[in-house]
Formats: sequence, C-alpha cells, structure tokens
Amino acid sequence: MNQASGLNEVAAETLVRIRERVPLVLSLTNSVVQPITANLLLAVGAAPVMLNDAEECEDLLRTCGNALLVNLGTLSREQADVMRRSADVANAGKIPWVLDPVAVGLLKFRTEFVQEILRANPTIIRGNGAEILALAGYDAKSRGPESTCGSDTAVCAAKELAAREKTTVLVTGEIDYVADSGNFSALENGHPLMTRVTGVGCAMGALTAACAAVADTPFHAAVASAALMGIAGEMAFEKSSSPGTFAVALLDALYEMTPDLVRTRTKLCGHS
Amino acid sequence: MNQASGLNEVAAETLVRIRERVPLVLSLTNSVVQPITANLLLAVGAAPVMLNDAEECEDLLRTCGNALLVNLGTLSREQADVMRRSADVANAGKIPWVLDPVAVGLLKFRTEFVQEILRANPTIIRGNGAEILALAGYDAKSRGPESTCGSDTAVCAAKELAAREKTTVLVTGEIDYVADSGNFSALENGHPLMTRVTGVGCAMGALTAACAAVADTPFHAAVASAALMGIAGEMAFEKSSSPGTFAVALLDALYEMTPDLVRTRTKLCGHS
Amino acid sequence: MNQASGLNEVAAETLVRIRERVPLVLSLTNSVVQPITANLLLAVGAAPVMLNDAEECEDLLRTCGNALLVNLGTLSREQADVMRRSADVANAGKIPWVLDPVAVGLLKFRTEFVQEILRANPTIIRGNGAEILALAGYDAKSRGPESTCGSDTAVCAAKELAAREKTTVLVTGEIDYVADSGNFSALENGHPLMTRVTGVGCAMGALTAACAAVADTPFHAAVASAALMGIAGEMAFEKSSSPGTFAVALLDALYEMTPDLVRTRTKLCGHS
Repeated sequence: MNQASGLNEVAAETLVRIRERVPLVLSLTNSVVQPITANLLLAVGAAPVMLNDAEECEDLLRTCGNALLVNLGTLSREQADVMRRSADVANAGKIPWVLDPVAVGLLKFRTEFVQEILRANPTIIRGNGAEILALAGYDAKSRGPESTCGSDTAVCAAKELAAREKTTVLVTGEIDYVADSGNFSALENGHPLMTRVTGVGCAMGALTAACAAVADTPFHAAVASAALMGIAGEMAFEKSSSPGTFAVALLDALYEMTPDLVRTRTKLCGHS
Repeated sequence: MNQASGLNEVAAETLVRIRERVPLVLSLTNSVVQPITANLLLAVGAAPVMLNDAEECEDLLRTCGNALLVNLGTLSREQADVMRRSADVANAGKIPWVLDPVAVGLLKFRTEFVQEILRANPTIIRGNGAEILALAGYDAKSRGPESTCGSDTAVCAAKELAAREKTTVLVTGEIDYVADSGNFSALENGHPLMTRVTGVGCAMGALTAACAAVADTPFHAAVASAALMGIAGEMAFEKSSSPGTFAVALLDALYEMTPDLVRTRTKLCGHS
Repeated sequence: MNQASGLNEVAAETLVRIRERVPLVLSLTNSVVQPITANLLLAVGAAPVMLNDAEECEDLLRTCGNALLVNLGTLSREQADVMRRSADVANAGKIPWVLDPVAVGLLKFRTEFVQEILRANPTIIRGNGAEILALAGYDAKSRGPESTCGSDTAVCAAKELAAREKTTVLVTGEIDYVADSGNFSALENGHPLMTRVTGVGCAMGALTAACAAVADTPFHAAVASAALMGIAGEMAFEKSSSPGTFAVALLDALYEMTPDLVRTRTKLCGHS
C-alpha cells in the first residue's frame, strides 16, 4: 500500500471513529453559518455545541469538549474575547482546535486579532487561497468570503505558514492542499456548486475539528475532512445541480456516507 | 370518550385554534435555531417574532405578543437581562411563556441564571431528560444539547419539578412525558431522525408556546405540541430517511397537518 | 416599446449585470434571516458579506463593498451604532444602500432610530404596507413582521415618503409598488406562500441592494428586484406547494433564472 492509498484508508477510518466516538465540537463561528455548521456535524455523526459566554465555553472545554472551531466570519470585540479564552483553554488542555481566519488580510481588526490568537497554537488552520497567503505574510487581496486567488497560488504559503506556526494548514479551493512541517497532500474532490451555498467552507472547518478529535495526527484530520466534504459535494451534485436542493443533498450525503465510499472516492492528486 | 382519546381531540383542536388565531410568539432563542424556529411557527400557522432589545421585547409583549419562549441555548449576559425582563412582563401580563433550559446542570452561568428566571413562573418547562433531572435537583450529566439520559429516567423528576414550581413540565425524548400537579401523559409519536436536525427540539419549544397561547390549559398545550411535532416527524420520515431532506419535509408536514391527522395519529401511551 | 415593456427589459438586464459584476453586498440584517439572505445572494449571482464590527464594516465599504443593506429586524443598541456608521460611509461614498425598516411604528426604539438613519439618505426603502405607512407618518399598526395592511393601502404613503425623503420606495405585498419622485410602477409577480418562509421579504431587501449596485437608477433596481423575487416565487410554487420544499425551490429558481424568463414573466400592472 503506497502512502496515497494509505490516506484513503485514513479518511475512511476517521469517519468510522467520528460515528463511534461522537466528538463534541464547540463551534465559535459566524452567525450566518451556525445552522448549516450544526446540521453538518449532526449529519456526519458528530455533536455540535455553540455558546456565547466565555465562562461557559471554558466550562464546556474543561468538562466534555473534544474539539474547538474558531471562525472569524462575523467577529465582534466581545466574541474576540470569548475566542481568545477558549483557544487558551484548548491549548492548555491539549484539545485540538481549528482556526478559520475568514477574510484575514482584508479587514484590519481581525487581521490584528489573528496574530493574538495564533499564540494559542491552532492545531489546524483552514482557509482559502487569499486567507492563507495573507496569514503567511503575502499581500493577497481577498474579497470578503470569496477568494480571488485559487488555492494553487497558496501552496508555498501554506508550507511556509505550517513551518512558521508549527501547525497543519488546509487550503481549500478547486484543489485542497494539506501541509505540515513534513507532509504534503493534494485532493481533488468537490464541486464548484459548493461555493454557491453559504457556509459550506465554514462548516468544513467544524468538520475538520471533528476529525481532529479522533484522528491520529492533525495532518490525517485535515486530509480526512477534505475528502469527506469533497465526496459529499460530488454526491450532492449527482442529486441536484441547483444550490437550494444541492445544500439539502449535501447534508444527506454526509449522513449516507460510508467508509467504503470514502475509501474508493478519495482522490489524492499529489503527496509528498 | 376516555381521557386519552380526549387528548387526541385536544391536540386536533389546538391546531385549529392556532390557524384561526395566528398567535404571535416572541422567541428569545439561541442563534443556531432561529431560522428553523421561525419557519416551523410559520409552517404550522403561527406568527414568529424575534428581538434583541429588552425594551422592544417589553413593548411587543405589552401590545401584541401572545406567547413567549425563553431558550437558553446560546445565553449571553446581555441576553439574560432581555430574558429576565421579558419573562417578568409575561408573568405580570398573564402571557403564557415556555422555558427551555438547554444544557442546564452542565454549564454554571445558565444553571445559576435559571434559578432567577424560574421566579417569573414559566407556564411550561420543556427539556430533555438530563435537563429536567438537573432542574429537579438531581445530579444528571447532560452533554451539551445531547441528553445522555433517556426521557424515561426523568419521569419522577418531571412530576417533582411540576409540583415544586407549580408549573407544567414537558420532557421530550423517545417518549414525551407531560406532567403538572394533577395530570400525567406519555406520548410515543416522533422519530429518532429528529435528533439529527439541529433545532428540532428548540423549535418545538416555540411550538409549545404557540399552543399555550390558544389552549385551555398548559397541560393541553404541552400535549398538543408533543403530538403535533411527533406526528410531523413521522410524516417527514415517510418522505425521507436522511436529515437534509427530512428537515425540509418536517416543515412541509406541519403545513400539511390536518386536525384529522392529529386526531388519528396522536399516540398516547400513558395517562393518569 | 412602451415604458412597461422597457421595465421588463431593465429587469432582465439587471440580472445579466449582477452575474457579470458579482456585486459585494454588505448585509447588516437580522440574525433570523442571515442564512437565507446569503444563500439568496449567492443563488442569483451576487456576493454576500455579513459583519458585526463597525470598523470592519467601514473598512469593507471603503475598499470593496458595492452595496449595503440595513435591516432593523433584530436591532440592538450595538447594532444601531454599526448601522449608523455604515450608512454614513455608504452615503459619503455614494454606495447604494437599502433600508428595510422592519416593524417600524410598532416598537419605540427602532421607530426613533429610523429617523436618525434616514439622515444618511437611503437609496431605496423597502417595506410592507404597515411599515411604509408608519414611516410616512400615518398611524398604521403593523404586527411584528406580519403586515396587517395590504401593500395597496400604502400607495399614497409610498409616493409621499419618496418625495419627502428624496428616495425610492418599494412596498411589497400581494402587489409590489415602486415610487420615486417622478415614477411609479406596480408589479403583480409572486406567490402568497412566500410569506410562509421566514426571511423572504428580508432577503429581498438584500437582492434590492445587489440590483442597486448594478442598475442605472434606484427605480430600476427596485423594479428589477421585485420582478426577480416575484418570478422566483412563482417558479418555486410550480415545484412545491408546501413551505419547506418551496423555500429550497426558491433558491434553485433564482439560480436557474434567465434573462428571457425575466423578460417574459415580469408582470407590470401599473406604470406612470
């Protein structure tokens, strides 16, 4: 078995573990995507929790939280504090946490805030091309949630960012790339219609967190989440080519996903 | 006609009254479930309102509000104040209000807050097994929105809580139980897939409030809401066995619900 | 070509331009309707952004925002400040912005606030009959998001409000009316089931903003958005007569909309 087919197996095994262990994922995410994020976690077999109060987030992470997502989409000053404290508790308690730096580089407040929260050592950073370029220090112009740079333009930036922050970076786009200090993979699952449904990318961050709660390594978690989400997108497109019904079919697909489907449909197109 | 078939009739009549009177339900609920809550109220024939400002909530309740829902899901310090003031106005104005104490017992801030808001005499308390056990003073470990105790473990707690707080308690789960100081009913409508869609339980709290605005007694309202929601879940499962399409079918089912369907499909499995 | 058929062409051309230019619409809207608003903009071909922080809103509008929506649905004191500052930046920068004065006249805080934000010269005001009557100074009793006055009762009020505020007014209802200081149109597209899905009216405000970003005049934008939304509602009803599936079909319809469909299905029933 070569390394690539090994990752297919890893993705399939990650799905099995999510369903066995039902990881509780505290998702501090933007208000637009909360419903699809919670529904996606439930569909795949994980358990979502969303909270607004910093003390309650700390309570939850200390007692029963298995993973944390921090998504900056609709950041407020109050939420920044909740996120900072939650990330610190996750970091101290070795609870895996995913940073989704939405629109970083475009808006000043979050661009400053992200530097602060990076100190809490995110387990995985998930972003589109523009966001990863910006985080790595390049002058990329993102345009709100829409990346104007393909994910391929951010491959080097992803590797540099992973090395600099000693973390795992997942760049999503037409091709998804995963990089940590020693590994690199590219996956070509997915469908363009996923960009016409609000929150698919953001909800994927929560799925990545669920995977990180059960996978052996953050690298495995990032690859598995890209595979699961991409395959679900392909399955949904087999049901519908318009975004309303497609969004509904995407949730169905994650619920109907089987380890065998993951094993056979994960399309790795690069690995080193 | 025995008492049980009398409750089938009560549930059917409650649906008729909701559609005739279109009760305006102020739902102070968590941000994750606002869309499904509003859509569910609209589908069944009620009118949803959601507000953030305490004065505006008071205005609304004093002028045209017919019922209030207080759901603690994503409680913040600011929202606690809005809830406290709204519950006080409802209590003073004899407007029925439903308390949904999400994750009480698990998180400290809301566990303290719930004691305060109980003083405003909720008309109905709706919770899962763990939440009702916690409110009744037992040491139940809920796990975020997922109850780890079946509703059946909370039957005695529900009766005790109803007696202590002079209120009506609705415990939802595989079987739904309704208890007030003198009455007790159990309903076995519903489908497990309802737990794989975010907000079905929370939206049911809003439906309970809508029922309370039109029913003769809180006990009738709680029974009717359990019947309506459970039957809608069964009808939705006849359309789909995956959660994306199931959630959509659930709204359709509430819209397509008829008094006859309620009369014939309400399954009471215990009454005293 | 008479003026009315000219407006059919305008609506068709507006759709073409949205898809070519992909206007970025900052939607400061109520928390209940954020998902449907973002999904509707994506479905039609525009780009949604939602933010909570005032500085970030200003950043976005100054760098890449093409239109702004201000919807008062779940107004808070904090959000009022964000809205005021955003509207000022839009006004100063000649970025078109749409005011949706949800429940104005019913609740005191927003009724006072709307007077403040009117000073920032909204490009278009979109409301139901009761809201437009209230804004124009009449004593209309709206009832939360449900208008108790038909849109036809607000025709004169719409014209007066348009003249007084030197703006364009779009009154939506069974018939949609558009008025500015010199023009008036009525459109009879749409379907009553649209009122049984939460956020259709609010999301239409965001669509109006997207149209305003690309149309030659605010009047054209308002007519185009009423046509696009109404036709999508009719197309959705051809797919489903229950609100769950109807809501999904509405998004599909906006994605599948073609200039030819807009040209042939726009139903103007009054123009002067």
